[in-house]
Amino acid sequence: MAAAGVDLLLVTDANHIYWLTGAEDWAFYTPLYVLVSAKHSMPFWYGRAMDRPGAQMSTWLDADHVIGYPEDYVQQTDRHPSDHLVGVIADLGHARSAVGYESESYYFSIRAFDHLRKGLPNARFLDCDLLVNRLRMEKSDAEIAYMRDAAGIAARTMSHAMELIAPGVRQSEVMAEIFKTQIAPDERFGGTITGLSPIILAGEKAATAHPAWNDDKFESGQTIALELGGARRRYCSGLARTMHLGTGLPDEVRRTEAAVEEGMQSVLECLRAGIEAQDVHAAWQKVLDRHGLKKDSRIGYGIGVGFPPDWGERAVSLRRGDNTILKPNMTFHIILGMWMEGWGLELSETVRVTTAGFECLTQFPHGVRLKG
Amino acid sequence: MAAAGVDLLLVTDANHIYWLTGAEDWAFYTPLYVLVSAKHSMPFWYGRAMDRPGAQMSTWLDADHVIGYPEDYVQQTDRHPSDHLVGVIADLGHARSAVGYESESYYFSIRAFDHLRKGLPNARFLDCDLLVNRLRMEKSDAEIAYMRDAAGIAARTMSHAMELIAPGVRQSEVMAEIFKTQIAPDERFGGTITGLSPIILAGEKAATAHPAWNDDKFESGQTIALELGGARRRYCSGLARTMHLGTGLPDEVRRTEAAVEEGMQSVLECLRAGIEAQDVHAAWQKVLDRHGLKKDSRIGYGIGVGFPPDWGERAVSLRRGDNTILKPNMTFHIILGMWMEGWGLELSETVRVTTAGFECLTQFPHGVRLKG
Repeated sequence: MAAAGVDLLLVTDANHIYWLTGAEDWAFYTPLYVLVSAKHSMPFWYGRAMDRPGAQMSTWLDADHVIGYPEDYVQQTDRHPSDHLVGVIADLGHARSAVGYESESYYFSIRAFDHLRKGLPNARFLDCDLLVNRLRMEKSDAEIAYMRDAAGIAARTMSHAMELIAPGVRQSEVMAEIFKTQIAPDERFGGTITGLSPIILAGEKAATAHPAWNDDKFESGQTIALELGGARRRYCSGLARTMHLGTGLPDEVRRTEAAVEEGMQSVLECLRAGIEAQDVHAAWQKVLDRHGLKKDSRIGYGIGVGFPPDWGERAVSLRRGDNTILKPNMTFHIILGMWMEGWGLELSETVRVTTAGFECLTQFPHGVRLKG
Repeated sequence: MAAAGVDLLLVTDANHIYWLTGAEDWAFYTPLYVLVSAKHSMPFWYGRAMDRPGAQMSTWLDADHVIGYPEDYVQQTDRHPSDHLVGVIADLGHARSAVGYESESYYFSIRAFDHLRKGLPNARFLDCDLLVNRLRMEKSDAEIAYMRDAAGIAARTMSHAMELIAPGVRQSEVMAEIFKTQIAPDERFGGTITGLSPIILAGEKAATAHPAWNDDKFESGQTIALELGGARRRYCSGLARTMHLGTGLPDEVRRTEAAVEEGMQSVLECLRAGIEAQDVHAAWQKVLDRHGLKKDSRIGYGIGVGFPPDWGERAVSLRRGDNTILKPNMTFHIILGMWMEGWGLELSETVRVTTAGFECLTQFPHGVRLKG
């Protein structure tokens, strides 16, 4: 905060709020923030009064650091929770402070910001987008342990989904079992929903990256990619694999599979602390060029705590031009998605960067699985 | 739009985008908008290039009305998809137009708006928050049919969850079955996840409105409220009911149940087109006062299309001061939630307003269910 030049940081991203305080309830669909003040050693939870008891139970904050706004500020046209927040910020001694805010948070609206600025004319607002995202990048041992558990959930879910997928089975039936397995994978512990929704890319829908599932039945001859994950205590690990319903792979699928497999090996071989994010992409691009294939999009991003709608941390992307230096215990979802004309193929791993190389958190066989 | 005084409306809420175009993919975690132009009879989908094929498959729009921004605008610090959108808006002839935007959309960020304003210095931006929300309130017959299906999914899910809940069973195990039933309720059709996550309020966690589920085991003597729903083609119906693990209800639960039951009857008796939203609340308040109970929060809201994180339409609340006049085919989730000290109780119905009264879309027995 000192480096960012702010005395008060208004944290509005649900992922950051959980990471800072443990607040995990589904309370972020109305304004819910955490206030980090240079004048106070403990942050403040600020949300709807009806959600206050939940915050007291789920966070490590003292009761007087859990502040609720009255119900009559909720979803009104003539007032906003920001109007109430103005008084709270003034009481904390920050009416004339430099206040940091997140300019690209799903849960801090233009209107919320407008009302706050109007109510605090003597404060100075500074865009602190990505400040907390960057702090989250290097994981602690406890966070890595959760992500390992999450990767285990993802593998179990992938395995179960692939067992179920067969000609004549509906996408929705498989998706129902995917969610069930994610949330109750085995007797050890439960999971949660992942930030990014599980995705089934089947048939021509596999030509697009994020199709909604439906009641279509899987058909013989379809190439089917699954992008799904696991989440343990909101820490997500992603996993994508591809299968083909048939006795042999079409030539185009086989050729693309070979390129993607080689690309993944090349990416993993170069991965270690000290290199730049774009170096990882360059390793992939070299393979892709040799195979005469084309892919515009990035091949990965930082991953961690993920409430809907996303599990990406947004601070680093594995792509050309991103010169972020990789550090030990950064975690990435490396996703090689090839969305072709009328079909598609995906292969991904969730990895932890180490000094010597990497640890692959996800453990699931490679290769397009044939199911005849 | 003419009434709002705008020539171009920038629709950014994922629910509105689906309602207008049918775009249902999980593509809204990066900027995804619909442009409604007074100069064009068909709206434009505007999103990430990799999601363009999906939009072509799921919407009714012509191919030249589905516009993708290049991948190198995604999650960058030095540029934003808004910078590219500026050119699209100029090409549509709206660089000097009155442009309506949504100031409280999860998916239109402060930064997105800043870049757009900077790029279009001659445009005039008008806050059109709730404009589309209000258009969505009165449902068509097709929408009502989906909500009836959704209510059926909710009832089936509630029934299944209540069968499973017993002392020693983990919350996560029940939640896994809740999601499974929501997505594959029976052989007729599949469902989707609901905008609001399903919620288990058990034991002391029932004192708060939106607790996250965990691995705690249900215990004998607990009062357990479930707030869940069903969604068919993204149309949500909500349903809340309460059960008690034991052979008899504690006095406090019995007294609160009687008040809430009487309150619901009173609410439903007054419900019909032509009254004001606050009249519904007044009917509830009268009963609550007679029972000497207190509840600060609203008792319902418009409900319909719901992508995470919410299924409320935000345009109308059933509470004191909301003088919106109810019209036929408006749909509401009436939720009587009593979050007490250390326990809680909920009862809800999703209803359609009619000229003569109402149709209750949800069909599930009332009363706190005892399971000894």
